[in-house]
Amino acid sequence: MSETASHGADLLLQVFLMFAAAKLMAEVFTRLRQPAVIGEILAGVLIGPSVLGWVAPSHVSHLLSEIGVILLLFSVGLETKPASILNVGGTAAAVAVLGIVAPFAAGWGIMRALGDPNIESLFVGTAMVATSVGITARVLGELGVMSQQSARIILGAAVIDDILGLLLLAGVSSLSQGEINVAGLATTAVMALGFVAVVAIFGSRLITRSRHRIERLHSHNSTFVFAMALCFGLALAAEHIGVAAIIGGFLAGMALAEAVEGNHAVHEQTRGVTELMVPFFLVSIGMQLKLDVFAKPETIELALGLTAAAVLTKLVGCGLGAMRLGWRGALQVGAGMVPRGEVGIVVAQIGLAGGIISESLFGVVLFMAVATTLLAPPMIRPLYAGTRVNDEAKP
Amino acid sequence: MSETASHGADLLLQVFLMFAAAKLMAEVFTRLRQPAVIGEILAGVLIGPSVLGWVAPSHVSHLLSEIGVILLLFSVGLETKPASILNVGGTAAAVAVLGIVAPFAAGWGIMRALGDPNIESLFVGTAMVATSVGITARVLGELGVMSQQSARIILGAAVIDDILGLLLLAGVSSLSQGEINVAGLATTAVMALGFVAVVAIFGSRLITRSRHRIERLHSHNSTFVFAMALCFGLALAAEHIGVAAIIGGFLAGMALAEAVEGNHAVHEQTRGVTELMVPFFLVSIGMQLKLDVFAKPETIELALGLTAAAVLTKLVGCGLGAMRLGWRGALQVGAGMVPRGEVGIVVAQIGLAGGIISESLFGVVLFMAVATTLLAPPMIRPLYAGTRVNDEAKP
Repeated sequence: MSETASHGADLLLQVFLMFAAAKLMAEVFTRLRQPAVIGEILAGVLIGPSVLGWVAPSHVSHLLSEIGVILLLFSVGLETKPASILNVGGTAAAVAVLGIVAPFAAGWGIMRALGDPNIESLFVGTAMVATSVGITARVLGELGVMSQQSARIILGAAVIDDILGLLLLAGVSSLSQGEINVAGLATTAVMALGFVAVVAIFGSRLITRSRHRIERLHSHNSTFVFAMALCFGLALAAEHIGVAAIIGGFLAGMALAEAVEGNHAVHEQTRGVTELMVPFFLVSIGMQLKLDVFAKPETIELALGLTAAAVLTKLVGCGLGAMRLGWRGALQVGAGMVPRGEVGIVVAQIGLAGGIISESLFGVVLFMAVATTLLAPPMIRPLYAGTRVNDEAKP
Repeated sequence: MSETASHGADLLLQVFLMFAAAKLMAEVFTRLRQPAVIGEILAGVLIGPSVLGWVAPSHVSHLLSEIGVILLLFSVGLETKPASILNVGGTAAAVAVLGIVAPFAAGWGIMRALGDPNIESLFVGTAMVATSVGITARVLGELGVMSQQSARIILGAAVIDDILGLLLLAGVSSLSQGEINVAGLATTAVMALGFVAVVAIFGSRLITRSRHRIERLHSHNSTFVFAMALCFGLALAAEHIGVAAIIGGFLAGMALAEAVEGNHAVHEQTRGVTELMVPFFLVSIGMQLKLDVFAKPETIELALGLTAAAVLTKLVGCGLGAMRLGWRGALQVGAGMVPRGEVGIVVAQIGLAGGIISESLFGVVLFMAVATTLLAPPMIRPLYAGTRVNDEAKP
């Protein structure tokens, strides 16, 4: 009995500690008038190996975090009508491209200037590229500004950005194996762009037209059940064709956005699953920050330098792409694109697993990913002060 | 990249296959006017190792199934006011005790008559004892009869039954190690009964009185968040003091039942998490049924014999305990207590892991657990025909 019981208890202990710590810190930060999302990430730092050591990243936190981030992007997609993204498509594309070139060049340049090998420098550059739209989406949702044009540009650009960032990663990875597979890269690129376009344009129309057929299914809560199946199905499809799973979750939500407009039950049910699962994603990010690699002063200097470069390049690069919104709009977009979060962490993990970047550089990239994530909300908040239009608060 | 990506894809593939198969079969069974729950379990048999082999039990299915069954019992508790269980306490206790003695004696007796060792026989008897209230609760919810007296007796008896069954398991386990620790058993018994009594009686009053303070917390959806934290916290506490985690989930729901009465948002949010997570529990049960141990005719005979005994002993034992409800009520209670599900499977796993029962007997006990679970809904359904009072459909 002891083995099964202790395994079960250990599992439940992790689930309870992560959830309760996240929500306790969220409550504290909300009372301090700070975004709850910072509290939930710091809860992960606190209970993780770096400080208290109560919970360590495990297959439990990994699985729940993966489901959590997919559901988070799904709920963001659910508030995003495809038409509103297509309307900002040109600006979003400019923001995405400039927001990739600038940080990639800066990351690669800094590491080369410090005398690092070329391939390691390329990896650091890549880790600085992809925006973690999950964090920004959550902050924008908390501020109730999700329907503003700059918010839609951020979401659109982040989707394009993620696709381009993952193509870059695929390219750098194949370079690190001493070859570059142009045909393979091109195939992935075409598949990825085709997938996004097909789901965004035809998926939404198809589902909106079949809405009543889904509601008439015999199962209880059939629309929500269909939504969850579509969410995981498209996440799986996205990962299969080489895009991040979260893109699939986002597209599933977007394809459903028009069909479930005004369906109060589906929105509350989605809020239930995001309230339960998203904290595991945020806590996991915090838990992955290891503080002990920062014993050496030069590691701290490098971490701070790369973080500064990561913030400035997105502010300037993405801001330039969005100049037609005026200064304030450009800064809103630039700040909204700052967080790297889990995408930078994934790149760093791949580099570490492949023996391409060192343990201490891994710590530096993690620091950059978490720090940009922590810095973004206090930058975004004042830029949106007073612009809230009567939006419903998002999860 | 390939390692992380393929791990992620494998994880998502399992999640998607389990969820989609469960919901597809649920839709089919609902159209055939059969309980959805049978469809979801058969989906597990179908995609599991026995038939198609698409998904095998893994740490992914284990974790999601564990969370699913806790949330299922939580949602059942949420519909159960403590007063209504306390009102049926005497009958429920009689049902629970008679429903343990009869199947334990039958299981032990059959195995002894076939010449099996005493300790193996005691394990089989123990595996036949504990009712899996999750299945019954789901069927009763689908039928919309959760508020009837016999349904409340079933739930109350199943809670008592689970506590007594786990004490029996602890006793038989210590016997198998050649000693019986009376002091330890007594401590567990007192702790378990005290835990249930304290939460059922004082927890509900405390929470109902603090209701407005919870609603006034600064976090979004604070009541639902508090409910989830309480659910996992009590599940953990239950497991720590030696009761099943699901009891904690059930008690958390029950303690909140009065406080959230009429709170539409919390009920919809709970429906969201149960619709998402419970299918993993049902599919996992189905996946654990291995068909290949049934190649030998005597294994099939034993499995059918034990299943018949398992059904009859609960029908007669629990029915006798509920005779004051009249014949129909007694049969409703007896049939409601038939499914063994995950509790019998846990006992079988412990016996197998400890080298006490053979692989083929493990298969037989699994068969009994799944078969009782599949047989119960078609038995329960006609017994409640025409008795539905205007209940809201439960998840």
